[in-house]
Amino acid sequence: MIKNMIIGQSGGPTAVINSSLAGTVEYALQSETIGKVYGMLNGIEGLLDNNIINLTEMFKSMPHELNRLKHSPAMFLGSCRFKLKGEEEEFKRIFRVFDSYNIGYFIYIGGNDSMDTVKRLSDYAKEHGIDISIVGVPKTIDNDLVGIDHSPGFGSAAKYIATCVREVAYDTSIYSIKSVHIIEAMGRDAGWITAASVLARQDNMTAPHLVYLPEVPFSVEKFVEDVRKKLSELNSVIVVVSEGIRDKDGNYISARQDKGDDLFGHARLSGTAAYLKDVIEREIGCKVRALEPSVLQRSAGHLVSLCDVNEAFNLGSVAARAAEEGNTGVFSTLRRTSNKPYCVEYGLEDVAVVANREKFVPREWINEEGNDVTEEMVTYLKPLIRGVAQTPYRAGMPDYIDIRHLDVKMQKYKN
Amino acid sequence: MIKNMIIGQSGGPTAVINSSLAGTVEYALQSETIGKVYGMLNGIEGLLDNNIINLTEMFKSMPHELNRLKHSPAMFLGSCRFKLKGEEEEFKRIFRVFDSYNIGYFIYIGGNDSMDTVKRLSDYAKEHGIDISIVGVPKTIDNDLVGIDHSPGFGSAAKYIATCVREVAYDTSIYSIKSVHIIEAMGRDAGWITAASVLARQDNMTAPHLVYLPEVPFSVEKFVEDVRKKLSELNSVIVVVSEGIRDKDGNYISARQDKGDDLFGHARLSGTAAYLKDVIEREIGCKVRALEPSVLQRSAGHLVSLCDVNEAFNLGSVAARAAEEGNTGVFSTLRRTSNKPYCVEYGLEDVAVVANREKFVPREWINEEGNDVTEEMVTYLKPLIRGVAQTPYRAGMPDYIDIRHLDVKMQKYKN
Repeated sequence: MIKNMIIGQSGGPTAVINSSLAGTVEYALQSETIGKVYGMLNGIEGLLDNNIINLTEMFKSMPHELNRLKHSPAMFLGSCRFKLKGEEEEFKRIFRVFDSYNIGYFIYIGGNDSMDTVKRLSDYAKEHGIDISIVGVPKTIDNDLVGIDHSPGFGSAAKYIATCVREVAYDTSIYSIKSVHIIEAMGRDAGWITAASVLARQDNMTAPHLVYLPEVPFSVEKFVEDVRKKLSELNSVIVVVSEGIRDKDGNYISARQDKGDDLFGHARLSGTAAYLKDVIEREIGCKVRALEPSVLQRSAGHLVSLCDVNEAFNLGSVAARAAEEGNTGVFSTLRRTSNKPYCVEYGLEDVAVVANREKFVPREWINEEGNDVTEEMVTYLKPLIRGVAQTPYRAGMPDYIDIRHLDVKMQKYKN
Repeated sequence: MIKNMIIGQSGGPTAVINSSLAGTVEYALQSETIGKVYGMLNGIEGLLDNNIINLTEMFKSMPHELNRLKHSPAMFLGSCRFKLKGEEEEFKRIFRVFDSYNIGYFIYIGGNDSMDTVKRLSDYAKEHGIDISIVGVPKTIDNDLVGIDHSPGFGSAAKYIATCVREVAYDTSIYSIKSVHIIEAMGRDAGWITAASVLARQDNMTAPHLVYLPEVPFSVEKFVEDVRKKLSELNSVIVVVSEGIRDKDGNYISARQDKGDDLFGHARLSGTAAYLKDVIEREIGCKVRALEPSVLQRSAGHLVSLCDVNEAFNLGSVAARAAEEGNTGVFSTLRRTSNKPYCVEYGLEDVAVVANREKFVPREWINEEGNDVTEEMVTYLKPLIRGVAQTPYRAGMPDYIDIRHLDVKMQKYKN
């Protein structure tokens, strides 16, 4: 009997997680083994609430929308922050829904936590002799997943942060006064995105001039000294710091905040860059700006890496094929086989490898002083931001897909 | 005798001010009346320091670089914040340099202050019978120049902020928890950029949900009430505020800061959005994020409006032609002749019209409640962000022109 597929998305958004969804759907729609393709809204939570849509019907009637999906950021199906409690009743509820939709293939696109869900559900299915293939598709802007050369989503975040640095460098280069810009990149524990800011360098543009990753203990005193030294050589100094830098005792620099209460009796908290801005203003006294691109760096569909979009799409297809072939408890992955030219090979890996672990920047890819990265890092990063994607535009604006709008359209067709 | 042209740039950067420079240079290089084309580095300051480069030599040997110039943000020639003191000795020094380079045409690309410089220098030249045509090219992201339908630079800033809002809306739409995002747009006195954020709206995407311009006195109490009301209808509320919103007594909201000192005995200051974030956290208690794109919105060459790029280019050419034809004390301008289809007509206007004045958003283009804009505003804004420009890319990154790099290249050619 032909079994159906269900797909879910989970965790934080990236600019290319929908490309993985498009890759999975496109493969599944063409498969003769896989029946209908369903989507669970808001991950496992939506599954448990029977919040399920028919993706076959949606994309067979609007096939061009699959291409828009490929180029739209964030999460078409919505997300959740669901963690399995591991109770028998919970497993039973989940597999009851799978059974009611005749699901033989479950693809879960997400990060660490989602891979843990894949592992536990596939273990349960094996133990109870349930015939279902459960396969993960990795994603995260942080690039901290193990078992894969680099995470889909990272290349686009890398390109965004490097472009920010380059444009800030152009913006500030027009004046001949001394200034410092401190840009805060995402990545609480792993400094990959911060490191990628060095891709802004080109010809005589040397920004960023200082780069601080969470992998190296941060000293505020050393930082001030570094900035002072750079200011003696340059008019405009551009610094990139990870949101997660910590002192030698492991305390977040961003937590070293103004202990005084605000007007309303609340302690003020602000970001790492904002804190360091105060420090430089006090210690050096030049013009300082703190910039925190925040969520803009993870959902900038208009500035994605084409390499990233395509790899995310392929990882979706590879997962669908793996499920179709009966694999379970695995995730689709890629291995870099060559740097010149850049080539990758797709494959599968046991989810146990990735679940609940983190990949940090190796210390030898950070310079000795701890304020820059090495050439090995640059070689690793360079191919990942390549290529300009064909972002769909309408009326001058990126024209992303929106499930709420498609839903309305679908209802119209049904009448 | 054939006279030469000199061009300068001044004020804050925009994403298309170099397109105006490219338009001026391209026109002048093809003119049989205009001799050499020079550029003053860092505006009038550079002129007084004899910091002048030969643009004819530069771009005749590298003609393709003119196209890169057209698509590069910030200011190729560098800027200054120079204000004429009005002393006779100062005028004499400036015209002595003009004379030594045999300048018959001076094009100054800038905002309010630069147009004032154009006015005073051309008045002085007329009074003293000096044969020189001095013509301004307008620019500013703020759209607060009078005598022109809209300022070059504004369309790109408008597109940037609207894209930010749309991408934040996608980012946050994936969760089903209550949240508020407060995005701070540039424009201290005029709310044009803030208003342009409404171009993010599309189909079922209704963000931004609240928009506050400096033209209407801001009430923190009303703001909290507005947010509370929107939160009762929506999960995710996206607010855009101008950095320059003020209370009914004219005090900047951003100045209402934490009066407590920080760890080091310094008063903390932060932006308008950051302040309002604290207010919402205290009064409503949901998840709140403050986002301040800051300088990213004025130098985002990778996300310019093609309409803006082309108009800036044409305004540069029109100014060069006006100077060639002997006009002085004028600036190039454009008038909208039709909205459907969008058409403009180029012309000239006396600089006295624009110098030292500001154009605010008309009250009737803001809704009665003061938390949104009207349809007239949307009709005005829509065409200005149209079109996707061919940003040059290399190795996956925007490949902007850099005078320091070209300088090095030029020196190589000279050896």
